[in-house]
Amino acid sequence: MTETRPILHEYAASGNCYKIRLTAAILGIGLERRQYDILAGETRTPHFLANVNSNGRIPVLQIGDRFLPESNAACFFLGDGTRLVPAGAFERADMLRWMFWEQYNHEPNIATLRFWLAFVGPEKLSDLQRAQMDGKSAAGEAALELMNRHLAARPWFVGESISLADIALYAYTHVAEEGGGFDLSLHPHVQDWIARVEREPGYLAITA
Amino acid sequence: MTETRPILHEYAASGNCYKIRLTAAILGIGLERRQYDILAGETRTPHFLANVNSNGRIPVLQIGDRFLPESNAACFFLGDGTRLVPAGAFERADMLRWMFWEQYNHEPNIATLRFWLAFVGPEKLSDLQRAQMDGKSAAGEAALELMNRHLAARPWFVGESISLADIALYAYTHVAEEGGGFDLSLHPHVQDWIARVEREPGYLAITA
Repeated sequence: MTETRPILHEYAASGNCYKIRLTAAILGIGLERRQYDILAGETRTPHFLANVNSNGRIPVLQIGDRFLPESNAACFFLGDGTRLVPAGAFERADMLRWMFWEQYNHEPNIATLRFWLAFVGPEKLSDLQRAQMDGKSAAGEAALELMNRHLAARPWFVGESISLADIALYAYTHVAEEGGGFDLSLHPHVQDWIARVEREPGYLAITA
Repeated sequence: MTETRPILHEYAASGNCYKIRLTAAILGIGLERRQYDILAGETRTPHFLANVNSNGRIPVLQIGDRFLPESNAACFFLGDGTRLVPAGAFERADMLRWMFWEQYNHEPNIATLRFWLAFVGPEKLSDLQRAQMDGKSAAGEAALELMNRHLAARPWFVGESISLADIALYAYTHVAEEGGGFDLSLHPHVQDWIARVEREPGYLAITA
């Protein structure tokens, strides 16, 4: 796919970074990993902003001398033309539909609460962050309910096998209970799907 | 591309809906348009939730009896295989990078402030919405600055011609001044790019 081994600029505990590692692992692609401590501001240094990502965020996937921010775009790059991206035009767009939904309706609620509560720490939150917690809990719960209803009738988000949509949604869903009081046992079809993802050949854990 | 004419379920003033109309117009694809009053809750009715989008949002692009929510996924469906999606794998992923960035860093700030101030009305905002306005103004301004720096060196977001990344970002950028106190004259490269999009053959205005 590329001559050089891709380099992942990351913070290992981030679900957004993990998505890319999981995509690469399932496809058998080796990644070089470079760590940044986001709590210490290592992605906001002038060097990082000028050379890796002007948006000051990880993950960034580096391909030779080119840099690709945005987790789901990096997954798409690795998965494009493989079995993780459906061949049909509608299904391919429908896969992206779930990936955009993940970034708009799922990640800002479920991932943000996990970050605030399990990484930043509740005592360090601002008043505005605290004021947003109830809304994010409710929106995160609604996202899990929507996933549960969708998965009641089908094994994967799109089509008959795992796609990037499943990988993108799995990343923060399977660790949702680390923040915000989510209870996955209320969403049994989501739990079954989590187990299905974890049986996929090449699967690796977020802590790997 | 499809046998049946696509149906756009929309609220016409929404930039997310406009993206799809603009993509279709540039490609010469006819759309049937169905309007919903989001301020009256017409996308939260049991019928809409059961038949159009369980997430209760527009736009949704209907292709025959299949429904595709998420504006950027709908644009991808229409643009896939056309000149609006780059042929190179890195460039295609880089286009999606900007589209994910739009939904995560641009739309929740610039579009939300426009919606709150120009559509809902400042007097109807909740205390929590009001408390978020300064943060969204700052984040929206940072998004415009990032775009301005990117466009200082190139005419389009990705590659040498217009792509879906430009259409996705144009939709709310060109009407940014309708909410949140943004001033596009501070971002001259963005202004030049706006003029470039508007010269594209097939271009149509958000009010068309």
